[in-house]
Amino acid sequence: MNTPADGRGLPGTNLDPWYSQYAQRTAGLSASEVRALFAVASRPEVVSLAGGMPVVSALPSNLITTAMERVMRDKGPVALQYGSGQGIPALREQILDVMALEGISGSVDDIVTTTGSQQALDLVTKLFIDPGDVILAEAPSYVGAIGVFRSYQAHVSHVAIDEHGLIPDALRETIARLRAEGRTIKFLYTIPNFHNPAGVTLSASRRSEILDIARSNEILVLEDNPYGLLYFDEKPPEALRSVDEEGVIYLGSFSKTLAPGFRVGWALAPHAIREKLILAAESAILSPSSFSQLVVSEYLATADWRGQIDTFRGVYRERRDAMVSALGEYLPQLQWTVPNGGFYVWLTLPNTLDSKQMLPRAVKELVAYTPGTAFFADGRGRHAMRLSFCYPTPERIREGIRRLATVINGELDLLQTFAGTGMLESARIDPHYASPPPDLD
Amino acid sequence: MNTPADGRGLPGTNLDPWYSQYAQRTAGLSASEVRALFAVASRPEVVSLAGGMPVVSALPSNLITTAMERVMRDKGPVALQYGSGQGIPALREQILDVMALEGISGSVDDIVTTTGSQQALDLVTKLFIDPGDVILAEAPSYVGAIGVFRSYQAHVSHVAIDEHGLIPDALRETIARLRAEGRTIKFLYTIPNFHNPAGVTLSASRRSEILDIARSNEILVLEDNPYGLLYFDEKPPEALRSVDEEGVIYLGSFSKTLAPGFRVGWALAPHAIREKLILAAESAILSPSSFSQLVVSEYLATADWRGQIDTFRGVYRERRDAMVSALGEYLPQLQWTVPNGGFYVWLTLPNTLDSKQMLPRAVKELVAYTPGTAFFADGRGRHAMRLSFCYPTPERIREGIRRLATVINGELDLLQTFAGTGMLESARIDPHYASPPPDLD
Repeated sequence: MNTPADGRGLPGTNLDPWYSQYAQRTAGLSASEVRALFAVASRPEVVSLAGGMPVVSALPSNLITTAMERVMRDKGPVALQYGSGQGIPALREQILDVMALEGISGSVDDIVTTTGSQQALDLVTKLFIDPGDVILAEAPSYVGAIGVFRSYQAHVSHVAIDEHGLIPDALRETIARLRAEGRTIKFLYTIPNFHNPAGVTLSASRRSEILDIARSNEILVLEDNPYGLLYFDEKPPEALRSVDEEGVIYLGSFSKTLAPGFRVGWALAPHAIREKLILAAESAILSPSSFSQLVVSEYLATADWRGQIDTFRGVYRERRDAMVSALGEYLPQLQWTVPNGGFYVWLTLPNTLDSKQMLPRAVKELVAYTPGTAFFADGRGRHAMRLSFCYPTPERIREGIRRLATVINGELDLLQTFAGTGMLESARIDPHYASPPPDLD
Repeated sequence: MNTPADGRGLPGTNLDPWYSQYAQRTAGLSASEVRALFAVASRPEVVSLAGGMPVVSALPSNLITTAMERVMRDKGPVALQYGSGQGIPALREQILDVMALEGISGSVDDIVTTTGSQQALDLVTKLFIDPGDVILAEAPSYVGAIGVFRSYQAHVSHVAIDEHGLIPDALRETIARLRAEGRTIKFLYTIPNFHNPAGVTLSASRRSEILDIARSNEILVLEDNPYGLLYFDEKPPEALRSVDEEGVIYLGSFSKTLAPGFRVGWALAPHAIREKLILAAESAILSPSSFSQLVVSEYLATADWRGQIDTFRGVYRERRDAMVSALGEYLPQLQWTVPNGGFYVWLTLPNTLDSKQMLPRAVKELVAYTPGTAFFADGRGRHAMRLSFCYPTPERIREGIRRLATVINGELDLLQTFAGTGMLESARIDPHYASPPPDLD
């Protein structure tokens, strides 16, 4: 109808009549690579090592049904009604018991229950970030956090990590450099346990050191800990929040220890901050679902939830073992992290391979993963990928890694065969990314 | 421990060590007067005409329990898992059926389900508002919307209304004035049916006129319609969205036609906008509760939900009648709106009374209401209040209005007795508010 000549019909112009009306922050919203993959990877013939879905089939669904029935029978009018913006007090009491397992003591008054801990991330970012403010985050970091931070126009500065987590010296240097540039650092976002996507855990000695650095630089810490109870061997060191009440906002979730379908997570905030957090939560959704909260509360009160977490540990340990052993068998020349808990392995590729460019070929071979670029705000991560072992069975994981090896080895063969012929346009190495990311080598 | 002399311990200074770190927008977060009242008004001896809680006891709770049991039996793994950020397709199909009752046809692709329609309000505001942008809203407007708008640093410009809703000439004048001042108007937020808090409904002829004004001024319309199906006599005119697909974002909710405890609402957006809305929703919460959505979907598929809405209509009609008749009996000298649906009556006081100042005395007399100031972004509304008839029984409503009349008449007597003596400091009229708000006189 319109020709390009009149300027209409061009991408990003006035196909959207409201194009000129969006807020500046809206430019930062983009489809996450993980979400876009869900559609592709949901075909049953594809082994998806891409998503982060927990194994809800390992739950005793009869106990959940019973919990719902009891809630409707005994507390129906409360379950169906609006509730407190801060969340139901009985559930907040039980959340204290859950956090006690990781060394945290706190007050029920300082907990805010949220629509998954993702909402807590959103609210904390809303409270603290003006456009251009800096958030420090691990390199790599959780894709959903980077998305939220961008949506409030934050600048994410990545801090290098190694197999023991965030590197204290790198943190010091990054803070010093940013402050020398006159930047305002608002908080450090960190996932200390079984990192998503890197699979590493912050060591005990580094925990004290990181907290000291944050304290002496007056930088708030946002500790995101969805996986801490899902350890395979020994428990991880106690939470950062367990030794610093005033300087840490702690985020927890029932999505991995119970089920994500209820969307129940929480924040435990320093007392000075929590009132603002409640106001932000009320503004965003009035109150979290009373029904979901009461079902979770009833489940915690009547089911053996600690035993269920043990069950999950066994399920995920077996899958971690399957993945690590398959990697050793099929891709022995590469490097990967061996997580002691959680859902994820980080695989480093040779510098000649680009995980994002390779993905369509992998999907053609019926295996999916998340390219490393999803986990960086600055374009890094092309020579790495996240492999999730949480959802497929051990057999499928093994088959998935076998397929992945076929793709990777095929790419490497191709590169070797045609090296120097100039025929590999699509696999060309961008000089900007030619050196490996400084994070996990 | 600290004396005021050293500057510590003063309100708003360094009692909060993170005080200097908050985003600018956080200054706009304040406790809503409605939320603060919930605590006071929840004492059983108080007749609360303050809140907006629906009568969930009128629901067939056995049907809801059955819906839950079926969901867990037939779709447990989906209900417990993460879902699509846009919402479950089957529910979005059913939402089309619900909206068809108000003349709306649309595509299931353009619906986004949200954690209550409050979240849709939040997301739309996040998408469009830069600090200082103007949102047009009725005078008065929904307290929860004003809170969201403030939280993104919008400037709310109120447009006068009368018993037929938003006044087209006032809208034209406001737009012209703001544009002459160089302001950027981002959208018109309106509640056309059984307005919260004013109780009025936008007439059919004004609907076309308002849409024409919005279209010719290229102003997006945000139509909030939680109460449209709760009419008492005849149906309200069809939704604004029913005649304008491209210029209206429509917000709907199951909180009043089913139950707020599930937190399931939705937005129907112009196709050009909905992709950004989905991205904003994913950023905020990843995905809405699969469990809540499936239970609502199962209820809609198996229960007589239209008949249930008829039941609600009867319940609320009886309560509206009780309130209007009690007002006629106990406060015949005042003016109030008579809504044809929804939850609210707007009561205008004599200019000598201040509803906010009077509230503690009312609570002492065991009746609560929401002061009119809650519904204005500009300090107006002191000589008015919102009376909710949704939650208390007709007998309690009658008793509540009787108590309210005691308070109002007592205040008026006091003013008359001491008029001109200068002894009524606490009831002093601020000259700024001495004239009645131009909205509902």
